[in-house]
Amino acid sequence: MRQIEISQAQLRAEQMLNSSGIELTEHEIAHIEIADFGLGQLEVQGLELITYINTDRYCAKELVLFPRQTCPEHLHPDIGDETGKMETFRCRTGIVYLYVEGEPTSEISAILPSGSEEYYTVLKEIVLHPGEQYTIEPGIKHWFQAGDDGAIVSEFSSTSRDEFDRFTDPRIQRNGGSS
Amino acid sequence: MRQIEISQAQLRAEQMLNSSGIELTEHEIAHIEIADFGLGQLEVQGLELITYINTDRYCAKELVLFPRQTCPEHLHPDIGDETGKMETFRCRTGIVYLYVEGEPTSEISAILPSGSEEYYTVLKEIVLHPGEQYTIEPGIKHWFQAGDDGAIVSEFSSTSRDEFDRFTDPRIQRNGGSS
Repeated sequence: MRQIEISQAQLRAEQMLNSSGIELTEHEIAHIEIADFGLGQLEVQGLELITYINTDRYCAKELVLFPRQTCPEHLHPDIGDETGKMETFRCRTGIVYLYVEGEPTSEISAILPSGSEEYYTVLKEIVLHPGEQYTIEPGIKHWFQAGDDGAIVSEFSSTSRDEFDRFTDPRIQRNGGSS
Repeated sequence: MRQIEISQAQLRAEQMLNSSGIELTEHEIAHIEIADFGLGQLEVQGLELITYINTDRYCAKELVLFPRQTCPEHLHPDIGDETGKMETFRCRTGIVYLYVEGEPTSEISAILPSGSEEYYTVLKEIVLHPGEQYTIEPGIKHWFQAGDDGAIVSEFSSTSRDEFDRFTDPRIQRNGGSS
């Protein structure tokens, strides 16, 4: 990604957080992570993240999604003797359409990213409004998309080890940041 | 505590959360935990809590503090082979005066609860404004007090096992809820 694109996305994420009343330090604002997953279409498939804390026991992040922005399908595998990452998504603002393994929902609310449809294989829909949350067990494939107004999601989880995430789309290169 | 006192504290906590833009479900609102630590002076020494998630790997809570309300000094011990709870306090609104073990601050900003002064023994002060956070290592004594406008604090941590918390004040009985 070009630096100008990163800076613009950081500014936009900062403005969304500001509007929702979530305060960040100057250092956090300067380090908002912009993940385009190497696909080069940030606004369609991408994510903005602030990692508040990531220890060997727990992790907490704020995820910002622009309108209809999608975090691509992935799972968190076991790593050696350690069970894969378990995570709880709590919607703070906007609407989040979350998809996990299970009986597919007949008409989903998300719009599959054009040209990447085949890499979205789990279609059991969970809709999260502000104040609602859902916990994803380790090893379960999942992806999510914000509604038309974007969304802010708090992620509470076990330790984050983004480099081990397994994405369904083989084109994806994960350069830091995850969910 | 009398039911009327619990209900009033729940309503007050709900209003503070509403004002700060933090959304809760109806179920969460109905189950806001009110902890007076058995001391019978909730507004001086007490805490209001919403536990979002508490698994065997991680925990996330929202803590509400009324103006100058104090969470009494305690620590989280090791339990069997498991290292004690580690926790990160992130101030969302208001000001939090947090005290931990270490070189005592010469003039602290908190007001020690009258009649309980002897049970506040760690006096190294950390001041948290909105967006600022601090991580407390396992086994470290700590306590905290909100400023004049109260405070809301997000707590990210390893698993919560409140019943094992060790309070400095021997009069304290812990009936659920912690921080």
